[in-house]
Amino acid sequence: MGMKALEDRIRRDGIVKSDQVLKVDSFINHQMDAQLFQQMARRWKLDFAGAPINKIMTIEASGIGIAAVAGLVFGLPVVFAKKSQSINLDGSVYTTKIHSFTHERDYDVIVSKKYIGPDDHVLIVDDFLANGCAMTGLIELCEAAGATVEGIGVAIEKGFQPGGATLRERGYRLDSLAIVDAMDPVTGEIAFRKE
Amino acid sequence: MGMKALEDRIRRDGIVKSDQVLKVDSFINHQMDAQLFQQMARRWKLDFAGAPINKIMTIEASGIGIAAVAGLVFGLPVVFAKKSQSINLDGSVYTTKIHSFTHERDYDVIVSKKYIGPDDHVLIVDDFLANGCAMTGLIELCEAAGATVEGIGVAIEKGFQPGGATLRERGYRLDSLAIVDAMDPVTGEIAFRKE
Repeated sequence: MGMKALEDRIRRDGIVKSDQVLKVDSFINHQMDAQLFQQMARRWKLDFAGAPINKIMTIEASGIGIAAVAGLVFGLPVVFAKKSQSINLDGSVYTTKIHSFTHERDYDVIVSKKYIGPDDHVLIVDDFLANGCAMTGLIELCEAAGATVEGIGVAIEKGFQPGGATLRERGYRLDSLAIVDAMDPVTGEIAFRKE
Repeated sequence: MGMKALEDRIRRDGIVKSDQVLKVDSFINHQMDAQLFQQMARRWKLDFAGAPINKIMTIEASGIGIAAVAGLVFGLPVVFAKKSQSINLDGSVYTTKIHSFTHERDYDVIVSKKYIGPDDHVLIVDDFLANGCAMTGLIELCEAAGATVEGIGVAIEKGFQPGGATLRERGYRLDSLAIVDAMDPVTGEIAFRKE
């Protein structure tokens, strides 16, 4: 079931740029409403109660704010995967490639072997799920580390793109707090999935 | 006065790679300890009590986690400046260039005109202050927007690099929670500035 406070906020402050593009940069991915993030994280905490999660994981940049607040709510460490090698990191990293349709390029994405391993039971969180490229990359990093993906928390899933369906088919517990099934750029109307 | 909990954590978990390079990626900028971020933000809230702050600002990527948690503690919106143009943003942005000594390159950094303006009284936060390039860029973005910089909150200032001294000379209220004056890569010893 969708999270009403998030759906209402998307209706109020989201901007439908086309039938594919929804802008939420006034409260999620440029300006951030940390109080809303806290509500989202509390919802994930309820939904994943009982799962032996010991780490939150995300990818830079726009997942970091949500993940940090989730780390606070869950009382758990957060790891964010980094795009491209930084000279401040050791060579000992897991690495994968992620395609960004938004930026029309591939990124190398890394996570230090120090911060994810076989003992980790991970909740992956991110702001958007569309084609699922970023999420698949994060899952690959967890698999490479021998970590267990306990669940995936997403703020906004674009239900008309294949990422969500694919992850559910693969058996992942995917908790999208708002699933957009269709958007009308003329009226600005947004259709959220009902359970 | 330094924040003891942060200094202790740096002593325990920071790694002195050279007399210039301190790695804190186990709790600040790759893996993140959101509980520590909350303590840091509470300290800034005390230190800046009375300042008419209405917005938190930072720059992607490693500032975002600290800023999001600060947004929660202050009950204020957070804006993060973005490196390079994203096609998900309007053209209506303030822009500046920031040099990164870490990555040996210049970045274009942008912030949407929608999320910062003349009515804003900004607390800028970031994980590190060294040469001050990123901070100077964020101040330039605030100046371009006509916003007031009420203060600057930094987790770790490298006191042996010029960023902090320059900002203080320019009259900014700079609140660095730990100022590292010297590091010894052989012993791993870290000298923090005392008031």
